[in-house]
Amino acid sequence: MVDIFTFTGGSGGAWRVVESRTVKGEGLRAVESLAVAREPDDTAITSPAWTLRGFISNVRYATKTEVETLRSVQQGLARPRATLAALIPIRKNAAWWALAQDERREIFEETSHHTAIGLDYLPAVARRLHHSRDLGEPFDFLTWFEYAPEDAPAFDRLVDRLRATREWNYVDREIEIRLARAA
Amino acid sequence: MVDIFTFTGGSGGAWRVVESRTVKGEGLRAVESLAVAREPDDTAITSPAWTLRGFISNVRYATKTEVETLRSVQQGLARPRATLAALIPIRKNAAWWALAQDERREIFEETSHHTAIGLDYLPAVARRLHHSRDLGEPFDFLTWFEYAPEDAPAFDRLVDRLRATREWNYVDREIEIRLARAA
Repeated sequence: MVDIFTFTGGSGGAWRVVESRTVKGEGLRAVESLAVAREPDDTAITSPAWTLRGFISNVRYATKTEVETLRSVQQGLARPRATLAALIPIRKNAAWWALAQDERREIFEETSHHTAIGLDYLPAVARRLHHSRDLGEPFDFLTWFEYAPEDAPAFDRLVDRLRATREWNYVDREIEIRLARAA
Repeated sequence: MVDIFTFTGGSGGAWRVVESRTVKGEGLRAVESLAVAREPDDTAITSPAWTLRGFISNVRYATKTEVETLRSVQQGLARPRATLAALIPIRKNAAWWALAQDERREIFEETSHHTAIGLDYLPAVARRLHHSRDLGEPFDFLTWFEYAPEDAPAFDRLVDRLRATREWNYVDREIEIRLARAA
C-alpha cells in the first residue's frame, strides 16, 4: 500500500502562502494557496498552477537508536496550535545519487548531523518526508513542516543549520514556501 | 528522470516462459510469454494477463567497496549468449520494513551476505533490480536475471543460497519465472 501525497499550488487551498522564495536553482510559479491531499485526491483547488507528488517510505539512513529516539519525541501533524507550515521541495545532484549507501550515511549523519539537528527542534517542529525522485518528479524530496507561531524562530534556526551542512552542498534546487492555515 | 520497467505476462512476448512456480505466498496467473519494456511501453503483447512495474534507483545497502567490486565484475544485460532469463518478484513482510536502516543492512549483508553471494555468480549471471514497493505494486522487488544455458546450474545455486539466508525469513511472497528467448 503506497501513500502518495500531493501538494497542489493554486487558489482556494487550505493553506495560504505567506512567503515563497527560491533558495537555489529554478523557481516555482507563485501561488496564493496550497492544498495537501492524499491520493486519490478529493480536494478541490481552483486553477492549480502545479502539483508536486511524493510518497511515504521506510527510513533510509536512521539507525535503530535514532528511530527510537525520534519516535519517543516527535508529535503528529494537525496539532491545533500548529497553525503555520512550510513546504520545502529539494533536489540533490547526480554526485549525491552516485554515492554508495555508506558514503551517503556518512555525509547525512556523521558529518552533517541531519537527524540530530532535526531532533533539537522536536516536538515543536513536526515534519513529514515525502520521496519524489523515484516518481520522476522535478524534486527529490518534499518536506512538510508544521509548528505554532511561537516556534517560527526555532524553525528558522532548523533550516539555517541544515543549509550550512556538508550534505547541503549536494542540493542543487530548493524552494521554501511558508504557509498559514486559511481562516 | 525515472526509469520504470514493465514486465507484462501474456502471449507474444520476446521471452517464452519455460517454467513458473510459486515459491511462497499467492501465485500469479500462468502465461505463455513475457515482454520487458521501458515506459512508455511500446511493446505490443497479446492479451496481457498481468503487468508488474518497478523502477531503477540508487543503491540501498551497498558500501563504496562493494559498489566498486560489483562494477568491476558485472556485465550488462542483452549479451548474445545469455539466452535464458528469470524474473523473480518478491515481497517482504511488514517486520522488515519497520526495521531501521542499520538493522536491515546487518541482516542483508553482515548476516545474509546478499551482495557477496551475488558476486560469486558474476559475471555469469547478470541481474537488474527494480523497486516496486513505493509504486503500490503487489511485490516489493522484481529482479531480472540473464545467463547462458551453461550457467543455469550456477543460477540454481545462487537462488538456493539466497533463499537459505536469514534475510529470506522476511520474504512472504515469491514467484520464480524461468524464461528463454523466443526464437
